[in-house]
Parts: sequence; structure tokens; C-alpha cells
Amino acid sequence: MSKEVKPESVSLCPLGAAAAPEQELLCIFGTGDLGRSLGQRLLQSGSKVVYGSRRPHSCGPLPIGAQVLSHAAAAQSSSLVFLCIHREHYDFLESLAPQLKGKVLVDVSNNIKKNLYLEANAEYLQRLIPGAHVVKAFNTLSAWALQNGPSDASRQVDLCGNNAEAKQAVAETATKLGFTVLDRGSLSAARELEDFPLRLFPEWRLPLHIAIGLTAFFFFYLLLRDVIYAYVDQGKNISFRIMVSLANKVFPIVSLIMLSLCYLPGVVAAILQLYRGTKYKRFPDWLDRWMLCRKQLGLLALGFASLHVLYTLIIPIRYYVRFKIAANTISQIKENRTSEFDITTAWRADSYYSMGILGFCLFLLLGITSLPSVSNALSWREFNFIQSKLGYLSLFFCTFHTYLYGWDRFLRPTTYKWYTLPGYMLSLVVPSAVLVFKLLLLLPCVDRTLTRIRQGWERCDPEDDSKKSLLT
Amino acid sequence: MSKEVKPESVSLCPLGAAAAPEQELLCIFGTGDLGRSLGQRLLQSGSKVVYGSRRPHSCGPLPIGAQVLSHAAAAQSSSLVFLCIHREHYDFLESLAPQLKGKVLVDVSNNIKKNLYLEANAEYLQRLIPGAHVVKAFNTLSAWALQNGPSDASRQVDLCGNNAEAKQAVAETATKLGFTVLDRGSLSAARELEDFPLRLFPEWRLPLHIAIGLTAFFFFYLLLRDVIYAYVDQGKNISFRIMVSLANKVFPIVSLIMLSLCYLPGVVAAILQLYRGTKYKRFPDWLDRWMLCRKQLGLLALGFASLHVLYTLIIPIRYYVRFKIAANTISQIKENRTSEFDITTAWRADSYYSMGILGFCLFLLLGITSLPSVSNALSWREFNFIQSKLGYLSLFFCTFHTYLYGWDRFLRPTTYKWYTLPGYMLSLVVPSAVLVFKLLLLLPCVDRTLTRIRQGWERCDPEDDSKKSLLT
Amino acid sequence: MSKEVKPESVSLCPLGAAAAPEQELLCIFGTGDLGRSLGQRLLQSGSKVVYGSRRPHSCGPLPIGAQVLSHAAAAQSSSLVFLCIHREHYDFLESLAPQLKGKVLVDVSNNIKKNLYLEANAEYLQRLIPGAHVVKAFNTLSAWALQNGPSDASRQVDLCGNNAEAKQAVAETATKLGFTVLDRGSLSAARELEDFPLRLFPEWRLPLHIAIGLTAFFFFYLLLRDVIYAYVDQGKNISFRIMVSLANKVFPIVSLIMLSLCYLPGVVAAILQLYRGTKYKRFPDWLDRWMLCRKQLGLLALGFASLHVLYTLIIPIRYYVRFKIAANTISQIKENRTSEFDITTAWRADSYYSMGILGFCLFLLLGITSLPSVSNALSWREFNFIQSKLGYLSLFFCTFHTYLYGWDRFLRPTTYKWYTLPGYMLSLVVPSAVLVFKLLLLLPCVDRTLTRIRQGWERCDPEDDSKKSLLT
Repeated sequence: MSKEVKPESVSLCPLGAAAAPEQELLCIFGTGDLGRSLGQRLLQSGSKVVYGSRRPHSCGPLPIGAQVLSHAAAAQSSSLVFLCIHREHYDFLESLAPQLKGKVLVDVSNNIKKNLYLEANAEYLQRLIPGAHVVKAFNTLSAWALQNGPSDASRQVDLCGNNAEAKQAVAETATKLGFTVLDRGSLSAARELEDFPLRLFPEWRLPLHIAIGLTAFFFFYLLLRDVIYAYVDQGKNISFRIMVSLANKVFPIVSLIMLSLCYLPGVVAAILQLYRGTKYKRFPDWLDRWMLCRKQLGLLALGFASLHVLYTLIIPIRYYVRFKIAANTISQIKENRTSEFDITTAWRADSYYSMGILGFCLFLLLGITSLPSVSNALSWREFNFIQSKLGYLSLFFCTFHTYLYGWDRFLRPTTYKWYTLPGYMLSLVVPSAVLVFKLLLLLPCVDRTLTRIRQGWERCDPEDDSKKSLLT
Repeated sequence: MSKEVKPESVSLCPLGAAAAPEQELLCIFGTGDLGRSLGQRLLQSGSKVVYGSRRPHSCGPLPIGAQVLSHAAAAQSSSLVFLCIHREHYDFLESLAPQLKGKVLVDVSNNIKKNLYLEANAEYLQRLIPGAHVVKAFNTLSAWALQNGPSDASRQVDLCGNNAEAKQAVAETATKLGFTVLDRGSLSAARELEDFPLRLFPEWRLPLHIAIGLTAFFFFYLLLRDVIYAYVDQGKNISFRIMVSLANKVFPIVSLIMLSLCYLPGVVAAILQLYRGTKYKRFPDWLDRWMLCRKQLGLLALGFASLHVLYTLIIPIRYYVRFKIAANTISQIKENRTSEFDITTAWRADSYYSMGILGFCLFLLLGITSLPSVSNALSWREFNFIQSKLGYLSLFFCTFHTYLYGWDRFLRPTTYKWYTLPGYMLSLVVPSAVLVFKLLLLLPCVDRTLTRIRQGWERCDPEDDSKKSLLT
Repeated sequence: MSKEVKPESVSLCPLGAAAAPEQELLCIFGTGDLGRSLGQRLLQSGSKVVYGSRRPHSCGPLPIGAQVLSHAAAAQSSSLVFLCIHREHYDFLESLAPQLKGKVLVDVSNNIKKNLYLEANAEYLQRLIPGAHVVKAFNTLSAWALQNGPSDASRQVDLCGNNAEAKQAVAETATKLGFTVLDRGSLSAARELEDFPLRLFPEWRLPLHIAIGLTAFFFFYLLLRDVIYAYVDQGKNISFRIMVSLANKVFPIVSLIMLSLCYLPGVVAAILQLYRGTKYKRFPDWLDRWMLCRKQLGLLALGFASLHVLYTLIIPIRYYVRFKIAANTISQIKENRTSEFDITTAWRADSYYSMGILGFCLFLLLGITSLPSVSNALSWREFNFIQSKLGYLSLFFCTFHTYLYGWDRFLRPTTYKWYTLPGYMLSLVVPSAVLVFKLLLLLPCVDRTLTRIRQGWERCDPEDDSKKSLLT
């Protein structure tokens, strides 16, 4: 690699005219998508940019206004070097160790897969060039965000590194580009940062498994009770009901159970705190994990509830329903039956729909307020009011809706085909339990004790100073 | 309190290895939830943390890597002290006044209720230790946000204090944790910051009261006209209609009135400006307050409109409706009537539904664009275009939808039961007025004058320089 | 203009008491809405504010705590001057050139129309007073955001200017007010900043034109085939079908075509890359522009799909439908026909609805994840998973839904009125092509080549080093 710096300099546009002398020169290694995007952005924000390239004279299109030098020359001209190259090509940097000594090296790289290497890219880089100060940064942004500046989509730059001054220098550059900076500590956090762009909904995994499990169970359970029973018992083929009728039984059942699963851990935690008489003991791990995925449980439940709503609303345009209604009317006339209008049935049916609609609308409200930008605008008390108070109200409406659906069905022997319980009864177990326990927890005497415990009071303190935990 | 510092030091993990010497040491008083969360976060971002505790040897689980000292020793070791203790326990700090002199005290505390004390916690603290620089900060964040860093939910740290350098030091710490900082001025703003986590939808109160008032009024009005009238006049019990039919009359009425109430203050303001001939006179207070809650009025109206949509869509699966349709078909056959298909009725009914759907979809669009993150991405002109132009279009569609509902009903005497007007007529008053006035304001001559006034022109200026307000 | 500074000073409130001496004094020229809002905000964040006014003793209501001086005196007292006046009144500043020399002038102005002047306001200002350092800033915020601090709606201050220190000073003030700052480079970017508040959905224009074009074409096409054909051929007037039936054919057709147009450019790009054997050649301009408006295309398609859903759900409450169903039942009885229940039809109809609902729900999910605050919370891989994988799944469901709608209709000769194809067939062309090509691209051999190309590999490199673009 040539050490003659000047002759290799290729200025793509006349520099210096508008540029003030105090502008810092930033160096970028790598002229791929990422390197070009970053360079363009830095130029736009008024920095001077020099690219380090193996062949400065033939390295393809670069942002207008950038210089291109050899790697060595470029590294020497700047105190901050962005590495926009793949980890596989890091080796050649070793030969540049003298030029990079004392410089800040910003590792922007990402891997294609998780756990491809034992060491994080940035730690590997630090080991290669121990004399430089490696800072991991910008890798969580897309090339798109790098080029176009912080949009709503990506505004935060996470960085980590062992040298505070190096981190400060990178943070200042990022701030100048309009990003907010989050310091994640020493370089040992690099692995976490490099894994971030590769993660795929880790917090949704448990709720999704629960949803899939419940859906599969209830699908086959109801398939057995409804379709197969009708075929075995009466020889009727009603398999077409799978597509809408069966789906519209599975979805609300799963939705209601998952909604109640959002509120169950809160109740369990309260009972545990009451039983232990303190809030300072850690919850068991399973409870912690459960509490952490309540939002995802709720949103999945909302998805199932929305499906239930749409499947319900298309009922009257279904061929099967229209056929049945017409057949019913025709048979009434032919047999000269007169069916009497039943006010109780009208009350029940209308209440049933009303409860469902109100429960769903409250549920939608919970979903809307869990949008990041909406919950952002709420105070903690407001967020709590909606997610807890309105959430329980929604759960109550939906449970009541299901009870109204059942009504007096439990009295009819035909309900218990093959000695199994109908789906709606199974779906009522958890929500009813949650509501009953919540009511018990709201009893004044219980509520008072719980509030005191949550404010730090401890029952049966072995030592006599009950305010220990507040004052230490 | 012991003054021997060293022997009490309890290092929970070997420090110093990775930690660079220039790292600042931050002190936290209080080992409760808040103190622990804050400490963990500070450690993660590369700071060194020392806890002040009454009994450093038995203060429960603390974040790994933190030191624990006595209060006095901890205070002496750091220039920045976070107070994560309840206001009730502030008294003991008085005895630490010598150690805290000249230090920055960050008051993170919140109260359980509003107006519990005459003085803000931070002001009380400043009075207790006049030698320290008290800064109120971080109290608007949840312990969750403190522990896990800025998420979408809480990204902003509000702070206030009398000393600019102290505020600067706290702001730097907050920035390092990835938060954005908003300086709220002197310590007299502490009360406002302490009230923030306790507020419960203050800006929604007026619109909610209006909504509840309108709903109650129209519910009883229509109960009288529909249900009670039928019972008194014809002895028919149609009480079951309360659940769906009546609700589905009340919701759209309230929704339409509230939507028009969003646009009424703008019209009133324009008329006032035209009448006064200047934009530099303040609006009356009630108008200001009304203008400020237009967004909330609109969102509540959207909620009612959504309920109306759902209540309408379930009409065909209601027991009552199915019964009536079947009864109608049967009676047609028995009496051998043939009803003729009426094209005008078909046009009217389909237009009625179309207008409703288009109005609702535009209304939904208004709701979506008022989501913080969406309105954020819009320029002022774009936001104005949607909220004003499309808003009026939505109001027009919804009003037209209601007129089509009425159609020629106003000609039938049975409409005026007990000499009262039907609900839909009452709901048309305000929107019609708003639309008519808006049309008048759009007349070229009126529009031109209004535009000039809004650009600063004043009619009948007592002094002769008409550009006064622009150039002074 | 008087040069006596002191006597003209008008202090609106006793200063100095709480204000620390190190507070900076900021100057504002202009006492209009913007000037007052900005002043109030600066005062709240603890700065001292002095207004420059032509007649300091009679300039209307100003924020409490602000001083008012003559322009010259105000300019001399501060190193930072905010200009909240219209460009038309800039001339008088020339006379203040001596007082403004070396000061930072913040140009906050906006114009009423685009391209009103040849020069950006800020550049004009710099030309007027060459000795001052002009910084364009704050103009993209509304007066509302300026007064109330950064809300969710406007959090970012874009600035530009030729002097780095001047920009730094303005950036610090903006940061103190809680805004995030984005440096847009030299003053030549001022025009862009001044155009921002005036832009009106530039990125929505192309998708909107496509949507309007498609809607108009299919409306007239189906008007001809359905309504006019029925009138000409059978003399039946079914014009009332325009409002709902026809609309409910046009909307889903346009929606499906536009959804497939979102995915077509990706397929075209992949084919182009495969054909060229490299990713380093620029795409043609039309493809770039198309790729950039995919999000808007998709959201418009979602809007049309929502209209389709609502128009479908009101079918059973339409007068025409109820009439037809009743007439059908009556004629069945009168003619003593018995229609047989057809399981295949039931399967087809229910599958048709199910596919539609699932496709729509996935589509909604795509829409929700494209909300700025939601996509913000996703990693790049997660965003890609939803928008690409789930997007194709949604496209597949919607296309399948349309095929099920068609079913065996293509066999009936009556389908081809006037030798034209029915609308649903036309709507299937693009989505089917996209799905087929996507399937071909997913074939292992094709997929492997494409992946290698996207990782930087090049086919038939004229030079022999294939890693050129990665390492240079």
C-alpha cells in the first residue's frame, strides 16, 4: 500500500470554498452501501469526509464532495475512522496498526447470522488493533436511516466502548446527525448490539406459543364436538362449518382466555405479596416472565377478538345462513306455525351483542393506548388507569358477553355431547376466576393491607424497625 | 452516624478492572425500587455507583457492581447525590448538611396524592439544606423506564432547579442515559413536575363531561319518545330496544354533535376576528378553553361513531330483526300482497349508507393522523389540510348521511310524538349551522378580509401605521 | 432610531431576584405570535429575554418577565438575536448592521407560498448583513410547539448555517428547550427548510394519481358492463346500484391491484439484479421512484380495502337486498320449488369470506406496523419480516379470495357481456404475476444466486478481484 498521500488524493468536488476551517475531517473505510450512505449524511451535516480505499482511483460512485485516499493516508488525516466493511475483511487492518494508533475506530458492522463468531466484531477489532479505541455504534440503524437522517423509525444510536473520550467523540458526531445517543457501557456490550438487528420478536415468542397452543387445542376439541359428532351421531356432513362457524368459536374462546391471562399474573402477584407480607422478596421466575409478556398477550388477544368481530359480522351474508333462514320461513308457512315474539329472548340477544361491542371497543382502546407514541404521551397514572381499570372493565364485559351467550344452554342435555363441556364453558374458567379474585382483593380490608405492603410496609419484620427498607 | 468511611465500605464486586479512572462516582440515597433501578441503569451506562445506607451491611439486594457506604461517607465521595427516598424521611438529611454542602442533590421523589403538602418536595429539600443545589429531575419517569432506559414510552426527563451548573450536571447524566432533557426553569416549577405523575386526563375532562351530558340527555329523551310513548300510547312493551336500537340512536346523535362542536369554535373565532377587525385581541377564556379541547372532542366523537358502526352492523343478526323480517315475509304471502320495488327508496337507502361509510372513513383518517407519531411526521400545512379540509368534508358527509336518514320523515305527523322533535332533527342543528357559516366564510369577499386579518392587517387602526404589530 | 439604551428599557416584571447572573440574555426581534411564543418558552426554560421593538412603550402584550428595548439597544445586549419578523420587513435591519456585527442571527421566518422569492429568506438576510452569522432554525416548528415545548408532534429542530460556532450556539438553545437538533449543513440548505412547512404530501402524489386513475377507469368500465348494459340490453334501470354495489366492486379491485403494485417493484428489482449479475448498477429512475412510494401505495390500498369491508358488511341491511331475499322466498313458496342445500357452495362461500377476512387482518397488521412509532420499536429484521413475509401472505390471501369469488364464473357465457372481461379478472392479472415471479425467485437455485449478488458478489467481473466493492 502506497504511503504517498498527496498524489493519490482524488477530490470529487472543489472543497474548501464554503467549508469553514474548523470543520473536522472524518474518515470512512469501505465504499459499500453503508459507507456511501454514512458519508453522504456526514457531508450534508457539514463535516468533511475522506474515504479510505484500496484503489482510490476506481472505487465506484461516491457522494459528491468526498475525498478518496489510500487507507493509510485516509487514516492519518482523521482522528475518527468509521469501519463500514465486513468482519471477514478486517485482517488487512492489522497492517494499518501504526496509522490507527490512538484513533477512534467506529465499528458499524453487523453479521448475517447470530453466533457466527465466538467474539463480537468490535471485540475482535479491538484485539486486532489494541492501540486504537474501538467504539461500537450506528450498527442498529438501517442504511436508509443513516442516509436520510433520523426519521421516526430510527432515532437512537446505541454505542459502547472502553474509552470514555472515544465514546464522547462518537456521541457528538451522532448528535450532530440528529440522533439521540444511548451509552450501553463497555465494549463487552458489543455482542448485544450486534445481535439487535438480528432479533426476531423474542418477547412475542411465549405469547405466540400460548396462542397457537390454545387455538390448536380448541380447534380440534370443537371439530370433534361439532363436526365429527354430527357425522358419527347423525351421519350429517357439516364439514363446511370449519371455515367460518368453527373459526368463529375458536377465536373468541382463545381471545377471552388470553385476555384473562393478561390479568391473572397481577392477581397472583398480589396474593403472593399478601401471603408473604412483603414486597421485597423476588417473584418466582415464571411469574416475572409472565408479567413481562402481558402486553403481547393482550395484543394477540385483541387480534383474535378482531377476527371474531369480522367473522360475526359476515354471518348474515353467508350462503348457509341465508339458506337456513329462508328454509325456516318456508317451513313456518307450510306447516302454518306461528312463532311468538319472545321479549326475554330479545333482551338477552340484544344485551349479548351490546356487551360484546362495548367490551371490544374498550379492548380496542387498550390496544390504541399501548401504541408507543400514545403511551408516551400519558403519565404513569393515566397509563395505569387505562390498562388496569378499563382493562378489567373490558374483561368484565367480555366475560358477561360469554355468560349471556351461554344463558340457559347449560340446562339442556344436548349441550354435553359425548360428555364433553362446550367450548364457551371452558373459556369462562380463567376469566371468572380472575374477576372473583380481583373482587376479593378490592375488599377494603384486603386492599388496605396490600396498599401498605406496596408502600414498603412489612409484616412480621424479624427486626423491629419497620421502615428499614425505606431509609437505609 | 459514623464518620469512619473506609471500614464500612462494602464492595459487591471487584471494581476498577474495566472501569476507567475518569469515570464519575454517583451517589444514591435510598435502596428501594427506585434507587435500585436507577443504580442499575447508571452502572450499565458505565458510571460508578455508591449507595448511601443507614446500615450498609444489611440493606438487601443491590445491583451488582455498586458500593454501599454510610450516608455521610457516600455523600462525601460524590458531587452528585440522587435522593430516592420518600419525603417523610427527609429530616435525617439535615444532619448531613455539612457533607452535602455544595453538592448537587437530585430530588426524584413523588407524592401519593396531590396537594398533600403546601411546599413541593424539592423546595422543602432546598429549605432543609440551603447549602446544596437541589435539582428536581427524573420523577416523571417510571421505575421501569429508569431501569430499562428510554423506551418509546418515556424518553424525556423534565428538570428544574435554581443553579444552572447543577442543572447542567444532571442534564449530562440524563443525556448519557439516553434521555432527552427539558429544562423547566427554576425550582418553583418543581410543584408542576411533582403533580405530573398524578394527573389524570385533565384535558379530557371537559369533553368527557360534554359527552356524558349529551348521552344522558338524548338517552332519556329517546327513551321517552320511543319506549315509554309506545307503552303509554299503545300498551306495547318494547323495552328490549334499549339495548341496541336506542343505543344506536344515541351514539350517532352524540357523535355528530360533538364532531360539529370541534369545528364550531373555529367558526366562532373567525367571526369574532371579522367583527373586531384584528387578530391581536385575545379571545374570551371560554373560547380558548374550547379551542384547546377540540382534539379530545373529536376523538370522543370518533369513539361514539365507531360504536354506531358496530351497532349498525349487527342489526341483521339480531333476533328482533330476523323475527320481524320473517313475520313480514309470511304476512305478505298470507295476505297475498305484492310489494313493488321502489328505485327511489333504493337510491336513498344506498346513498344513506354510502355517505355514512365515507364520512366514517374520513373521520377514522382524522383520528389516525392525530396519533402523536403520525402528526409528528406531517408538516404544519399537511396537518392543517387533513384536520381542516378533510375534517369539514367528513362533517359534511356525516350531516348529509343524517339528512338522508330523515328524508321525508318530517312530513309524517307520527314523527312528532307528544309534540317532540325526533332525535335526528336535534342532532342536525349544530352541524348545519357550522356548515352554513363555514360556507359564508368561504365567500371570496369574506375570505379575503379574514386572510388579511390573519396576516396581521387591522381594520380602523387608531394610529395610522397599519404594520405596527409586525415591525415593533 | 435612538441610541440611548437605558431610558428606553421597560422591564415588565422585577428581574434579577431569582435569576442567576450566569443566565444568558437572548434577544427577539418581532412581537407577533411567533415572537411571543418563543419568548415565553425561553423565559420558562430559565433564559432572560429582551424584545427589540420600534416603539418599546406600546407594543402590545408580551410574556411576563421579558424586557423591551429599541432594536439597537436589544441587539447590543445579546449575542443571539431571533428574527421573528416577515421577510418583507427585513430592510430596516440594514441600518442595524453595526450593532448586529458578529452576532448570531436566527432566521425563523417562513413564506406564504413556495418560490415567492428567488433567494431563501436566510440567504437574503446574510446578504443584507454580511457581518452577522445567520442560522436558519426553528421555522419548521409551529408557533404552538414553540410555545408549549416539544410535544410528540414536533420534537426536531432542523438548522443550517455557514458558521459552525453560530450553529452550535443555536443548537444549545434548542437543546435547552428540549428539542433534538438536526444539522442540515450550510446556509444553502435554507431553501429546503423554508419549503418544508409548505409541502403538501409530495410523496403521496404518485400513489394518489395511480389510485384515482384506477378508480376512474374501473368505475366507468363497470358502469358500462353492469348498469348501462342492463339498460341497453334488457331495458332495466338499475342505476341505484352505483352507490353501493358498483362501489363495492371498484374498491376491492383497486385495492388488490395497488397491493400487488407494492410488491411488483421488489420483484422487478430482483430480476434486474439477476439479469445484470450485480447490485452495484443503479436502478432506472422510474423503479427508484416506484420503490420509494411503496408504503404510500400500500396504505392507500388498505384504505380501499377498508371501504370494501364496510361496504360488504352493510349488504344485509340494504333495502335492495332485503327486498330480493324476501321476493326470492315468496317466489319459492308460490312456485312450490325446493332448493337443495349445496355443500360445495357452502364451502366455497365460507372459504371466500375466510380468505378475505384473514387477508384483510394481515393487511391491517402491515398498516399498524408502518405507524412511525411502531416501526421505530422494531429491529430491521422484524420490520422486514412483517412487511415482506406477512405482506406476501396477505397478498396471497387476497388473491385467493378473488379467485374464490370468480370460481366457475369464467365458464358462463353471460360473464362476457359485450365481449368484455369482468372486473375481478382484470384485477387478478398483476397479483398473479407477482406471486408467480416471487415463487420462481424462491426456487433454491435462483434464491442462492440472488443472495450472493445482494451480499456483493458480481457475475462476470471484468477485473478478476470479485471483492472489489467490499474492500476498496
